[in-house]
Amino acid sequence: MDLRSFLTSFGTSFLIFVVLMFLFTWLSRKPGNEVIYYPNRIIKGMDPSTKTRNPMSWIKEAISSSEDDIISVSGVDTAVYFVFLSTAFTLFVLAGIVLLPTLLPIAATDHSIRLKNSTTISNGTFTEFDKYSMEHIGPGSWRLWAYMIAVYWISLVTYLLLWRAYKHVSEIRATALMSAEPRAEQFAVLVRDIPPSPEGEIKKEEVDSYFRAIYPDTFYKSMIVTDNKEVNKIWKKLEGYRKKLVRAETIYAQSRTIGSPEGIRPTNRIGLLFSNKVDTIEYYNEKINELTPMLETEQKITLRDRQLPAALVFFSSRVAAASAAQSLHARMVDTWIVVDAPEPRQLIWSNLSINYFSRVIRQYVVYTIVAVSIIFFMIPISLISAFSTFENLGMLLPFLKPVIQIISIRTVLEAYLPQLVLIIFLVILPKLLMFLSKAEGIPSESHAMRAASGKYFYFTVLNVFIGVTLGSSLYSSIKSLEGKPKLLSAIVDLLAEKIPYSAIFFLTFVALRFFVGFGLELSRLVPFIMFHINRKFMCKTEAEVKEAWAPGDLGFETRVPGDMLILTITLCYSVIAPLIIPFGAIYFGLGWVVMRNQALKVYVPSCESYGRMWPHIHTRFLSALIFYQVIMLGYFGIKRFFHATFAIVPLLLVSVIFAFVCNKKFYRFFQHTALDVVCNELKETPDIERAYRSFIPPSLNFDKDKLDGDDQNGEDGDHYGQV
Amino acid sequence: MDLRSFLTSFGTSFLIFVVLMFLFTWLSRKPGNEVIYYPNRIIKGMDPSTKTRNPMSWIKEAISSSEDDIISVSGVDTAVYFVFLSTAFTLFVLAGIVLLPTLLPIAATDHSIRLKNSTTISNGTFTEFDKYSMEHIGPGSWRLWAYMIAVYWISLVTYLLLWRAYKHVSEIRATALMSAEPRAEQFAVLVRDIPPSPEGEIKKEEVDSYFRAIYPDTFYKSMIVTDNKEVNKIWKKLEGYRKKLVRAETIYAQSRTIGSPEGIRPTNRIGLLFSNKVDTIEYYNEKINELTPMLETEQKITLRDRQLPAALVFFSSRVAAASAAQSLHARMVDTWIVVDAPEPRQLIWSNLSINYFSRVIRQYVVYTIVAVSIIFFMIPISLISAFSTFENLGMLLPFLKPVIQIISIRTVLEAYLPQLVLIIFLVILPKLLMFLSKAEGIPSESHAMRAASGKYFYFTVLNVFIGVTLGSSLYSSIKSLEGKPKLLSAIVDLLAEKIPYSAIFFLTFVALRFFVGFGLELSRLVPFIMFHINRKFMCKTEAEVKEAWAPGDLGFETRVPGDMLILTITLCYSVIAPLIIPFGAIYFGLGWVVMRNQALKVYVPSCESYGRMWPHIHTRFLSALIFYQVIMLGYFGIKRFFHATFAIVPLLLVSVIFAFVCNKKFYRFFQHTALDVVCNELKETPDIERAYRSFIPPSLNFDKDKLDGDDQNGEDGDHYGQV
Repeated sequence: MDLRSFLTSFGTSFLIFVVLMFLFTWLSRKPGNEVIYYPNRIIKGMDPSTKTRNPMSWIKEAISSSEDDIISVSGVDTAVYFVFLSTAFTLFVLAGIVLLPTLLPIAATDHSIRLKNSTTISNGTFTEFDKYSMEHIGPGSWRLWAYMIAVYWISLVTYLLLWRAYKHVSEIRATALMSAEPRAEQFAVLVRDIPPSPEGEIKKEEVDSYFRAIYPDTFYKSMIVTDNKEVNKIWKKLEGYRKKLVRAETIYAQSRTIGSPEGIRPTNRIGLLFSNKVDTIEYYNEKINELTPMLETEQKITLRDRQLPAALVFFSSRVAAASAAQSLHARMVDTWIVVDAPEPRQLIWSNLSINYFSRVIRQYVVYTIVAVSIIFFMIPISLISAFSTFENLGMLLPFLKPVIQIISIRTVLEAYLPQLVLIIFLVILPKLLMFLSKAEGIPSESHAMRAASGKYFYFTVLNVFIGVTLGSSLYSSIKSLEGKPKLLSAIVDLLAEKIPYSAIFFLTFVALRFFVGFGLELSRLVPFIMFHINRKFMCKTEAEVKEAWAPGDLGFETRVPGDMLILTITLCYSVIAPLIIPFGAIYFGLGWVVMRNQALKVYVPSCESYGRMWPHIHTRFLSALIFYQVIMLGYFGIKRFFHATFAIVPLLLVSVIFAFVCNKKFYRFFQHTALDVVCNELKETPDIERAYRSFIPPSLNFDKDKLDGDDQNGEDGDHYGQV
Repeated sequence: MDLRSFLTSFGTSFLIFVVLMFLFTWLSRKPGNEVIYYPNRIIKGMDPSTKTRNPMSWIKEAISSSEDDIISVSGVDTAVYFVFLSTAFTLFVLAGIVLLPTLLPIAATDHSIRLKNSTTISNGTFTEFDKYSMEHIGPGSWRLWAYMIAVYWISLVTYLLLWRAYKHVSEIRATALMSAEPRAEQFAVLVRDIPPSPEGEIKKEEVDSYFRAIYPDTFYKSMIVTDNKEVNKIWKKLEGYRKKLVRAETIYAQSRTIGSPEGIRPTNRIGLLFSNKVDTIEYYNEKINELTPMLETEQKITLRDRQLPAALVFFSSRVAAASAAQSLHARMVDTWIVVDAPEPRQLIWSNLSINYFSRVIRQYVVYTIVAVSIIFFMIPISLISAFSTFENLGMLLPFLKPVIQIISIRTVLEAYLPQLVLIIFLVILPKLLMFLSKAEGIPSESHAMRAASGKYFYFTVLNVFIGVTLGSSLYSSIKSLEGKPKLLSAIVDLLAEKIPYSAIFFLTFVALRFFVGFGLELSRLVPFIMFHINRKFMCKTEAEVKEAWAPGDLGFETRVPGDMLILTITLCYSVIAPLIIPFGAIYFGLGWVVMRNQALKVYVPSCESYGRMWPHIHTRFLSALIFYQVIMLGYFGIKRFFHATFAIVPLLLVSVIFAFVCNKKFYRFFQHTALDVVCNELKETPDIERAYRSFIPPSLNFDKDKLDGDDQNGEDGDHYGQV
């Protein structure tokens, strides 16, 4: 790719960005679109539209919003994400300020390579762009000292920024946890691997007596996890009927208002196409009346007979719960495992009762699957392609056969189908990784999200970055590695050798990501179109409309790995081709502003882990730095600048020590709750009964009135677990 | 070494054993020797001598004693040591029963090697002994299948026994910890890395307010660790004077009783040889009167001004203390580190205030020193030799010069000095390793003992086992390894190749260890002689005599690695030369009986860690097994029996999985106290004030009467920390 095509691509991206910005400014002002551009504010019951009519006012609002605003609107996890964005941004600004004015002239004024061009480098076609890169410096030149100092500068700035960021995030987490308004999950712990109950004792009694013995003063109540599969099925059916009933009533009401005051009662067919029509409202009412007692019976059966060896245990104080979650309870370490309870909304109920060693096995199986699919990325895809050949398609879907017979269509399809399959695979990859992460037996959504995010990171970095760098020569390169004794160092050398050739590609890639990516993000073109189609043709009831504009959460499981890829690319090229630095800085700067707007006005976080994402981000940030240092080590070797080897090996050691120290100083607080954080006085006596009830899954939730009635009758409200 | 010299050596060892046994039977009956052969019983106030006059009665007593007897007399750690001995014994008995009747005939009836002797093996001189070893089987023979099955048998038996042992030890630990008679340390935790106090607050206030906030109901009191160097110095001096005073008074009393009723008042010189003599009793009385107020002042200064950033915190319940020791207290993980308190007697006070990161650094420095000295074992020795050449000796100790000048003495010394230095080094090695382990900043003696034991294990196994196997060819062998790409597998091959040649040497070694080692252990010849010399010439007072026969503890830090070495040797040769198995079985069987006697009647344990030694033993036991499997893998390779490679690699994998599962299932309970173990009811309300006082170091202990007086005055007895 030469400079001209780069500029063309860059220009196109910029144009798209301008168009999308214009669309955003225009659409967001139109009255019907508040639900697309301010859904978070609407859900929170705030005034959706901003006061000023200035098209750039959202930028001012985004920049002027404080961290506390973000925490109160979108939670600690979102605030931590912004710490990550601002850390990356500051890193590239500091890198750019020092590296651009020094390294560019140093590269541009070196003529050593151009002179002996034909002899030293085989296919060295220098473009204008290459003139400013490290590629332009002759092997062994003293000018390489400047590049080595640049590696040091970037590393030191990274250490400093990451240290400050970790400290800051630790403070944010502490502040959130010590909040005087306690959250339900702070009083609960999750107990797994409960050993079989003694003869004649139900699980509930076993758990109660166990915890009451250890915590006579602070134990409040326990909730046994049950197998909810059956009851969930009935409950979902019931909920479906209820929705359909509301929909039918809405249709009926609409039909009444127009001309005929009687209206047309909506009807539907049961079963086959030609069966009798029934009155929809009556039909669903009947169905609901039929299912409601079934649900109640099923609830009772579930609570009594389907108790699983896991429980939620509630304490009357936050310190007791936090301390219990960190303590060993039984001498057999694989029984009575007690951990922090996640928020009620993010509990993955079906995973809670999986036993300890099968969790360990599942974890290793999943790791193996992911590692294998990262390494042999192409294999699953070709497998899918094989299944989707025309012969198979023809067999599976016989009605397609005539179409497939037409030669011209067949040829086109055969050419594009593999690519189509690849694209589909890339789209479903995050979902697949999320599924695999949940299959590990992880108890909470946010944890599964972190696990999926980690897997996605390795996928993108290894496949996109290394894949593109080695390009089509990948397989031949791998073949050339075979039989070499020092495989790892051979890979590093190979990467270092190939890396400069992809600089412009990645420059374009980063630019595309921020112009088109953030342009689409801000303009919300896809949700906008989807919402309007839905509202026009599908939605009838209020609830359905609300569902259509529901903004979703920030999707950290794909967002963070995506940003990490940009970070890794920019870091790795920062010294080799310093021109990439401004692009990296713009990506994270623009990202910060756009996402600030989206976090404040659009997305609604689906869970809160109090910044547990940070150690994960920190580790990958540092891995990117170490990866960069290793690549530089290889590249200096290729440039025959062996002083650097001795200078960069200690730097690698410093990185490892830095990782170790950070881990030792900060990490445990992100695994567990520090007791001095939760020991402060609460605003009011906590309502633990309410905390307890918030954990009851909706399918098992008894009628609210009944519950209250029970309480008024002087019972202890314990009927949930004890039937 | 041929069979004849082996028999000679074996016979000699056996003769020594018989003589030592005879000595033991004879000496232990003589009335004055009870303090040598029954010190533990005497200290415990039990009847020292046994009833029967049967010389073998001690064996009956040892065998009939139960595990509970051992725990009540010698503690949990000793009981755990016996679990180790009996596990090893059972392993070798089970191995012998199966392997000896099968493998010996298989080897003896194979004539393939003898036939092509001259061609296949270069220096194959077969002795009678070799006829029964695996060396005698021809390469690639189908008979090797039997050996492979033998490897499986030994591995499976080891897994089974280790699993049962870990479970059993876990039970012992739990029973000891849940004892209704609580120990002082169960109510205490050790707090380290206390951050600097805020302005105007003393450490004691800081610690009290911190823990009172977190544990409002269970916090009892805190004890700040102080810098006791000065006060210890004075206290030691004072104790020395007191001892000397008692001695002088005893001498005076003895002199009075004989003829002159006045007696002779002992005198001594102060300072130089020709100074005036003074009355000893008066002199020391004076000194004591002089020092006592000094000590009191120093105690006050220490308590007030020398507070260090570490503390012991006491709780009113065992569960609270156990839970606190496992919980994270501060958001900065390297501050307010809370761990289990060890017993008062085993606290290493000077280590308590070392801060977190300097502990980590110390640890790595010590590890590096130990690793380097294991690998370059000979270097420190040659260094010491270099320092102890005659020129240096002459310079350091001028009065030796005339002696050194005599040529004949010089020659003899020059020949033996390096060996002498080596022997001295081997004698001081355990002490050196103990010193290094304490330098890591470990807070308790028993932990330091475990750390030293681990280091000693690697030292002996690597240097004795591998050193002897490779023998004098070690250095040439290492040279031959250079430049080979797969270093590790080359080492394994080399070891496997050399190992059969040392079989007889190790057979002799094991026999020597049990006959002479346990013979000396039981007869206590060295302590016997030392005690009688001491009593004759040195001891005057009752206390001094008591000190002279003090039996000391079992010395696990050298005993366990010693046993481990025998275990590793026997395991590694068990299939190659099955004749070693009975020797291993006798070692552990005899060891069990002899040590049982010693534990019941002789040694007094110096500390109690509630079986924390076990995971340490378990890991090394398993390492020995894995080492053995790797050696067998190499040896089968040399025998060109490649089926075995595929059969033994899965076995190695099973070992690793077994280690992982054991670790996950049992280990954490040996790090921490499980809460359900300590939650049971106590016999009586625990006296926490007494627990608290037991932690006050003797040099800071106020007069007992004064303390009681304070309590009667209605004060809270808190004057220790708050002055």
